[in-house]
Order: sequence, then structure tokens, then C-alpha cells
Amino acid sequence: MTRAWVPARAGSPFPVSNLPYGVFTTQGDPQRPRIGVAIGDFVVDAGALAQAQRLPYATALQAATLNPFMALGPAVWDDFRTCLTAWLTDDAYGPLIEPLLVPLTGARLHLAFEVADYVDFYSSEHHATNLGRLLRPGQPPLHPNWKHLPVGYHGRAGTVRVSGTPVLRPRGQRLPAEGAPPDVGPSQRLDFEAEVGFIVGVGSELGRPLPLEECASHIFGVCLVNDWSARDIQAWEYAPLGPLLGKSFLTSLSPWVIPLAALEAARVTPPARDPQVLGYLDDADYPWGLDIELMVCLNGQQLSRPPFREMYWTAAQQLAHLTLNGASLRTGDLIASGTVSGPQREQWGSLMELSWAGQHPLTLACGAARTFLEDGDEVVISATAPGTGGQRIGFGEVRGRVR
Amino acid sequence: MTRAWVPARAGSPFPVSNLPYGVFTTQGDPQRPRIGVAIGDFVVDAGALAQAQRLPYATALQAATLNPFMALGPAVWDDFRTCLTAWLTDDAYGPLIEPLLVPLTGARLHLAFEVADYVDFYSSEHHATNLGRLLRPGQPPLHPNWKHLPVGYHGRAGTVRVSGTPVLRPRGQRLPAEGAPPDVGPSQRLDFEAEVGFIVGVGSELGRPLPLEECASHIFGVCLVNDWSARDIQAWEYAPLGPLLGKSFLTSLSPWVIPLAALEAARVTPPARDPQVLGYLDDADYPWGLDIELMVCLNGQQLSRPPFREMYWTAAQQLAHLTLNGASLRTGDLIASGTVSGPQREQWGSLMELSWAGQHPLTLACGAARTFLEDGDEVVISATAPGTGGQRIGFGEVRGRVR
Repeated sequence: MTRAWVPARAGSPFPVSNLPYGVFTTQGDPQRPRIGVAIGDFVVDAGALAQAQRLPYATALQAATLNPFMALGPAVWDDFRTCLTAWLTDDAYGPLIEPLLVPLTGARLHLAFEVADYVDFYSSEHHATNLGRLLRPGQPPLHPNWKHLPVGYHGRAGTVRVSGTPVLRPRGQRLPAEGAPPDVGPSQRLDFEAEVGFIVGVGSELGRPLPLEECASHIFGVCLVNDWSARDIQAWEYAPLGPLLGKSFLTSLSPWVIPLAALEAARVTPPARDPQVLGYLDDADYPWGLDIELMVCLNGQQLSRPPFREMYWTAAQQLAHLTLNGASLRTGDLIASGTVSGPQREQWGSLMELSWAGQHPLTLACGAARTFLEDGDEVVISATAPGTGGQRIGFGEVRGRVR
Repeated sequence: MTRAWVPARAGSPFPVSNLPYGVFTTQGDPQRPRIGVAIGDFVVDAGALAQAQRLPYATALQAATLNPFMALGPAVWDDFRTCLTAWLTDDAYGPLIEPLLVPLTGARLHLAFEVADYVDFYSSEHHATNLGRLLRPGQPPLHPNWKHLPVGYHGRAGTVRVSGTPVLRPRGQRLPAEGAPPDVGPSQRLDFEAEVGFIVGVGSELGRPLPLEECASHIFGVCLVNDWSARDIQAWEYAPLGPLLGKSFLTSLSPWVIPLAALEAARVTPPARDPQVLGYLDDADYPWGLDIELMVCLNGQQLSRPPFREMYWTAAQQLAHLTLNGASLRTGDLIASGTVSGPQREQWGSLMELSWAGQHPLTLACGAARTFLEDGDEVVISATAPGTGGQRIGFGEVRGRVR
């Protein structure tokens, strides 16, 4: 992979091997959201470029969300990626493309796609084990189903927002003490969850389960997710139908969608499964482990580095499971991994784990202690992965400050 | 209320006090879905009528779904209802409107709106108690939270379909025997759930909980819901995050959306709550119990008559709860009541209850026994409610046959 001719600061997350998609506006044109592709220190106006080059799918790239382009499928995604790669590494295209570049510092980023259904999985064995130990002490930490299927639930698509959206501390019912009647007030156990999201590009038909080998071809790209959680609200409400208000106040996404094609060099074999999984989940020939390294910072201080390669269930398995009953997928479906936690404490992806349900407060560099999030706290989740050609690619970040 | 001049068979569910909205196509124009209002034995083309009368919101009524019209809010809904009522009861309008009438028998009905988020509640005390007894024998049938908040979860919006959609028996993981490893196969415990759905017309802002007294003004209308359920799949998957594949293969809706305004005469005081509910759920001044009587038929035979007036939590309380944490609503959000079951056996809204988890098979009139649904079985849920002027209004039906 040669380098792009577009200027990039050292260590830019956006080399030409990345080419993530986003939707942006500029200060001069704040009412016109446009699809852009990040390259170096710039974003290129994808719709304008596709139109200038008379690409047959230019109209889809001139939309205000990625949905129409995502719906076109892998052949079109690959074609545009091939074109962009060629043009951005051949400085003969400079005169054509330079006028279509906007400095990243001057671009305001929006939610890149319209979320159809949002399913949040629970696919880190380390996270699920930690939570089982905390919530059901003395019992086996994993439920009997956990190693047989990717456990998950539907989240609220309508409260998915882009990075930077303020995190308004949710009010809700919680128990002031075990056995006491519930009261209503602001959550005292507000938490983050560092996750990775997979975005469905091509939908599927009702009644047709997707075989595992087809699943990846339905995924357009990958982003970062902060699945904000109010642990006290969730603990009271969740039996027997799962979390609702403990999660539904906000889910934040990183603005850049990394094409799945950019993660080819990051593919790894997922952890061994024991017991053996059922046939429709057998991914021996279709391993979609991904060596994405997340980083969680609280008020600028690194809290943990959750390793996505440790996830027990892959996105391909999640889609195979999600469609096993004939459920259809739609363009814009968001499939989140669940909290990414590794085996080591410094790899845990939530304060619930890092403070051990508040029993072991963290001491921040400033000297302050934290069990859960306090007003004014800012959480930033970022990630990198190996790119093709030896350059690491970055996911950008998903950021949120508690108000 | 005077009668409409539009012909109606005796006992028509659609007197002028009803005026439900739907989306239809005709055989002669199958590619153009249009908004219609049912009146007597006909459906009136609402967009064409609004345009002919130069109503300022005619464009919204010319859409292919109800969403743009629903988003306009109660003043517009009321205005159009007032206009329709006047025109359909004054035969001077016959020459204008008659050309815009399509016989119901010639109209193909579609899903009337685009579903944003789908939340399924669990608000019948009788149903929740029955399921608690069946699933957790020897323990208190209701979880401790049940009488403090309307328990619910997000369902899959993308697999909501209109009445008549075939019910493809879902495959999934289930336990062949207690303690045995799971296998994959067609659900052996396929069930219906008779529910009532409330459709959000006007959305709300992120971060702003809706006070109970505002909730009803966000609801455009009401429909019938069959929340098909695979009990064996659900039993294995649901801990700890709730149902997913046991529900997500299909949810069927009746095509007609009854305006909330048409149910004014059906309002009743909901059951007394004990213990007293928290302030944000206190509906003493805003009772939204509704005297809707459901009827469930299996292969043409009446199985039960679930009484909606018995529901413990109302839709207004559900919306107040759903937004308590600041979660926003969107036009098209579907809020389902949960299975409607009354205190008597002949009022139960699912086979899980009627066959007592398969322990007491039903004997059908044809002599066949049923625990759960068999291939070829057809379930029809219908409902009526008191209308203004003494006429009963009908909801039409939601129908589905298992394949």
C-alpha cells in the first residue's frame, strides 16, 4: 500500500488503508449533511467526488446518511474503495480532489446512518463472568445458555446519538436499600460500556436464516459504541424481561464507520469454544475475531485497554444467530458486541467491573476517587487495529460528558 | 351522532364514530399505497379528499404511510376527524366523496405506518401471574418490581408485519430435556399473544420526561397486536437479558389504526393499584383504562375474550415510564400492552395460559387437541369497544396462519 498524497499528521488514524465513512457539515454550509471519507487530516466529499467521476452509484453517496450507499452491497462498496485508494495515492488526481477536501478540524460530524434495529449482545466471557460474580455471588457466573448462543437483547434505536452528545444523568426507579420500596431520582450508578458496533449494510429476507458464511457480506462497517448504563435502574427493572430504562436514555456512537474491508489485516482466530458450538455457529472456516484494541479514558486518564480479540462470539455468529428464527435484517441495523473486557483488570470495559460494583473505588491521577460516573466526567473510547501495509488504523473516538 | 350516508352492512365495525386509518392499494393500482379511512363498507381515499378540499395538511395525507400525518399532532388529527364526520354525515357531500370510495372488499391493506421503536410491555396482572406460576412454581408469581413499574422490553421493529402475513414456524435453540444440551429445530411451542398496540404520533425530546398528563396527546391511535412467541426458544435464551429470538421472527398488527379520539366512550377507571404507585405514574386524574373487548379465534373457533379494561398499567403510564429516564419518543413508536388476560380462564390471551404450558390440552370443536399451534392453524384476534352515540366500534382483526 502506497501512501496517500493528502497531508496527514504523524500517527494519523486515517491512512489510505482505512478510509472510514462519516456524515459531516461545514461551518459555511451547516444545513447540508454530506457523506465524507476521512483521509489524513481531511475529509473528502464523497458524493461530489463520485459525481465528478460519474460513478454509477453517485446518487447514493449524495444522500444525507450512509443508508442508501450501504444498501447497495459489497460489490459497490469494494468498487468505491478501490477507486478512492487509486485516486488518493496518485497525485495526478490532486487537482480534481483537492477542492473536495475539508479539513477535519472544520468538519462537524453527525450520526453517519439511520439506525434501524439495535441489538446489543453480551459476548465477552470476561465481562459476563465479572457481572455474574457481582450480581449472583455464590452461583455459577455464566448462565447455562451463555456458551451455547450469543445472548443479546434489543436496545432503543431512537436514542442512539453521535459522539459528543451530552450525557444527561437519567432519573429512574431504584431501591434505596434492599427490601425498601423504590423511589425515583437521578441514577447513582451511572456507567459506561466500551463496545464495538457492526452496521448492517444489506438486509435479508423474513424467513431466511443467514448461513454463517454469508453473514460478513451483510456488514458494511464497524464503529465504537458507548452503551451508557444506569446500574441501579437496571438492577431493579430487569427481571424478567431484561434491561429497558437502565440503557435507553442514550447510546453513543463514534462518527466514523470503518469499512469491514479495512479490517482484513485485523482478522484473528477467536478464542476456542468449549463446549463445541452448534453447527450454525461453527465458525472454524469463517473466523471473524478482530484484533481491535480499545482504550477507555476518563477525564483524560487512561482507565483500561479492552482487547476485542478476546470476544467469545463474533459478529458473524451474532448475525447467524439473530436470523436463525427467520428474523430479517435491515440496512442500518446496529449490532453491538456488548462490553469488551479482557481477562486482566486493566482490560475491563466498565466501571461496574473496574470499581467492582463500587466496592473498590478507583483513584484517579488527580487524587479523586470514582466508583461510578460523577457530573462533569468525560469518557472517551478510542480504538486502533492493524491495517494493511503495516500502518495501524484508528477508529476515532466516541466521547461523552455527564451533565 | 348521526349516521353516515355511506352504505354499511348491519353491525359494521366502522360507523362514523370510528373512522380508523389504514394504508391500502387497489387491484387496479397495486403500486400506489394510499392512506384511507374506513367508513361502513368502504374506504375513503383520505389524501385525495384532503386535496380536493384544499386542507392545509393534505400533503401529509398523500404519503404512503401514516407517519407524516401522525407527526402533525392532535390539533390536525382532530380537525380532519371533525371534517370527515361532517362530510360523511351530510349527504350533500355524496357527489364529492362517492368517487373517492373504494369497497373494503376491493382494498388490499398494508402496514399503516413505519415502526420506529417497538416496546412490548407486560401489563396484565392476570397474565404475569399466570406466567409466574407456570415458570417459577413455588415462588411469588410476580417479581418484586411488577406493581411498581410497567415492566417491558424492546422488540424487533423490523419484523412487525401486517395482518395476514404467513407465520413461518421459527427454528431455534431449545432444550430437548432439562439438563440436556440444546439442539436446533422448529419451535414445538409456538404461541400467540393477544395484545393492544398504541402508536406514537408526536415524538418527544431527548432528556425531557413526559408528565403523565401529556402522554395521551402523543398517542395517535390504537391497533391489535399478535406478538407471536416461541415458548421453548424463549425459555432457553431469556436469562439474563430478556426475550430475543423467541419473539423476533414476527409480530403481526391489525391494518386499521383506531384514533384515540374514537375511544373516548371506552375510557374507564383502571384497576386499583396496591401498593400505591409513585407520583409520576399516579393516574388518578388521567385514567386511561379502556373497555376494549378482545376475541381470539383459532381455526374459526372462539378461544377466549380477553378484557383490556383489566390491564394494570395504562398506555399513558407506559409512556410516562418509558420517558422517565429522558428517552425520547419518535413518530411511529409502537407500544404494545403485553398479553391481555382477564381473571377467568376464558379471558386468557395465550395458549401458554389456556393449555397451562401444555399440561392441559384444549379440545377444539372438531375434536382435535391443542397445546400449542400446529402447522395450518389460523389465529384471528379482533376487538370491539363502546363508541360515541351508542354504536360499538370495531378494530377489524389481526390474522395469521402458521406454515
